[in-house]
Amino acid sequence: MSDTIRLAHGSGGEMTARLIEEVFYTALGGDPKGANDSAILDLSGGRIAFTTDSFVISPLFFPGGDIGKLAFCGTVNDLAAVGARPIALSASFIIEEGMDVAELKTIALSMGEMSRETGIPVVAGDTKVVDKGSADKLFITTSGIGVIPDQVDYHPRHTREGDKIIISGTMGDHGYCITALREGIDIQSSVQSDCQPLHGLVALLNPISAAVRTVRDATRGGVGTVLNEWARQSEKSILVFENHLPVKDEVKGGCALLGLDPIYLANEGKMLFIIAADKADDALAILKSHPAGLDSAIIGEVAGGKTQVIMETEWGTRRVVPTPRGEILPRIC
Amino acid sequence: MSDTIRLAHGSGGEMTARLIEEVFYTALGGDPKGANDSAILDLSGGRIAFTTDSFVISPLFFPGGDIGKLAFCGTVNDLAAVGARPIALSASFIIEEGMDVAELKTIALSMGEMSRETGIPVVAGDTKVVDKGSADKLFITTSGIGVIPDQVDYHPRHTREGDKIIISGTMGDHGYCITALREGIDIQSSVQSDCQPLHGLVALLNPISAAVRTVRDATRGGVGTVLNEWARQSEKSILVFENHLPVKDEVKGGCALLGLDPIYLANEGKMLFIIAADKADDALAILKSHPAGLDSAIIGEVAGGKTQVIMETEWGTRRVVPTPRGEILPRIC
Repeated sequence: MSDTIRLAHGSGGEMTARLIEEVFYTALGGDPKGANDSAILDLSGGRIAFTTDSFVISPLFFPGGDIGKLAFCGTVNDLAAVGARPIALSASFIIEEGMDVAELKTIALSMGEMSRETGIPVVAGDTKVVDKGSADKLFITTSGIGVIPDQVDYHPRHTREGDKIIISGTMGDHGYCITALREGIDIQSSVQSDCQPLHGLVALLNPISAAVRTVRDATRGGVGTVLNEWARQSEKSILVFENHLPVKDEVKGGCALLGLDPIYLANEGKMLFIIAADKADDALAILKSHPAGLDSAIIGEVAGGKTQVIMETEWGTRRVVPTPRGEILPRIC
Repeated sequence: MSDTIRLAHGSGGEMTARLIEEVFYTALGGDPKGANDSAILDLSGGRIAFTTDSFVISPLFFPGGDIGKLAFCGTVNDLAAVGARPIALSASFIIEEGMDVAELKTIALSMGEMSRETGIPVVAGDTKVVDKGSADKLFITTSGIGVIPDQVDYHPRHTREGDKIIISGTMGDHGYCITALREGIDIQSSVQSDCQPLHGLVALLNPISAAVRTVRDATRGGVGTVLNEWARQSEKSILVFENHLPVKDEVKGGCALLGLDPIYLANEGKMLFIIAADKADDALAILKSHPAGLDSAIIGEVAGGKTQVIMETEWGTRRVVPTPRGEILPRIC
């Protein structure tokens, strides 16, 4: 890898994966293939999920949320992705000297609102202030703990040929919203970030958890990146059908204009699931019954053969969907 | 409070306390008086401690450690301060574009070394990269989970008049080391940061845990800040004896030169304890038996009267040791 850190190392794509493997796994141990959105710890009383994420999004405020809501939901969703019931979050703030206290209050209140709405408390925190110019306004790191129900075990290694891929709604809303905001285009657009907590949605699948292979929230790097990780972790190929992918018309149009592919755009309120084929319709019906899952759709399936992601286009042709290389959109989350 | 964030909001002193109370507690709920270094969660299998801290120290490398070792030990020590046995850490990295990968590797390896030495795994992580100029090289946020033994319950509310205050070694080494490094003075000094994990030291007190009222690592804001927090949380006064405070001669001399008071200097490998009077000598003997506690000393006692910290000086006079106001040393941890 290169000698200096480049923005692409934070893209969530291939360069991020290499940085993590070569620097962090090498130093700290662990198996990249075993990685999940949350670590799972065995305690005497059961299994605990543990996860952390830093949020460096710019701008701090956007249609549909702000960095506080994002940091709260992001960590809740990482717990949800291993099937855990979130029980507590921590929040650590790195603040640039000169930041408006009013903005900080708005952001903290927005986390507090999420906390009250979900009933998940923020129980630990830290505040650091750095001199002007040493940070860009505000970074938040949230960590979370959750309890995993006994019967739940979601991991890509459980994937079998024929399993179905489900997404819980439209693709790329968060990434498109932030890009449009930054580019100053599409001011009239109704596309808001989809930033929302998904633990309630995932918990609805508990009664059919034996059919749920794995779950992942498609954040940085988007659906394309998650599917590639799953292909690698399960050592199978994944087939997606372009005309089954739910994308808002405005997102589709805006992406064409900006030269972006919605399959790589960040989502902050969408889950991907791999479900055993015979329960896929049941799972879809369950997900559609939840406000956060109204637009859920079966978008593909697990196949044999080479470890890769293949898209069947609207015209019936097939193309590889690679893991993204290089920077896609910096500071999207 | 002021309308904009000032460096002093990160000092660990009075302005930090006000920021946390007025912004974060207001927004997120919770009781500042109940606060501890780690949150304590009741699970079916027992009590879990949960804590988080961001590290923004500059420079990244210093005599006795680096930001990686510091981030590891800091979170371990916050768990130790509630008597928890650390079971897992998470680490989240915010990296500035352009950082040397070699430096990042050194830092990650230093965390890995601490992990192997202590047997505490780093089980979850995240990496974000921000554009050049939007962060100062590297910030690390570590969170940690620990299990609290059944009989352990360390909190300032247990404090009684007559209890003794113990420190586990010399005061101000970390703060002095970083300041000397930044000021370019005292290059020949042998004063290194005291950065070290203290969970083993604290665990030695488990057999006499009923006599241990509370424990705290005296980091940002130093011993003076912890004692003031304890006075407030226990609603008692605390008396410290200046000539019992262990301070290295070089630190004492350097502080005189720089106009600093070692009682407010950060430590990264020292614990403060409040111990029931009849067990104070036992506790001292136990602490002195551990390599990290060789210079432990009884430095004061809990008294009645007004909530404040009083120092009896070497000349027998008494003065108030206030909570520090304003910025002491930015980016010390």
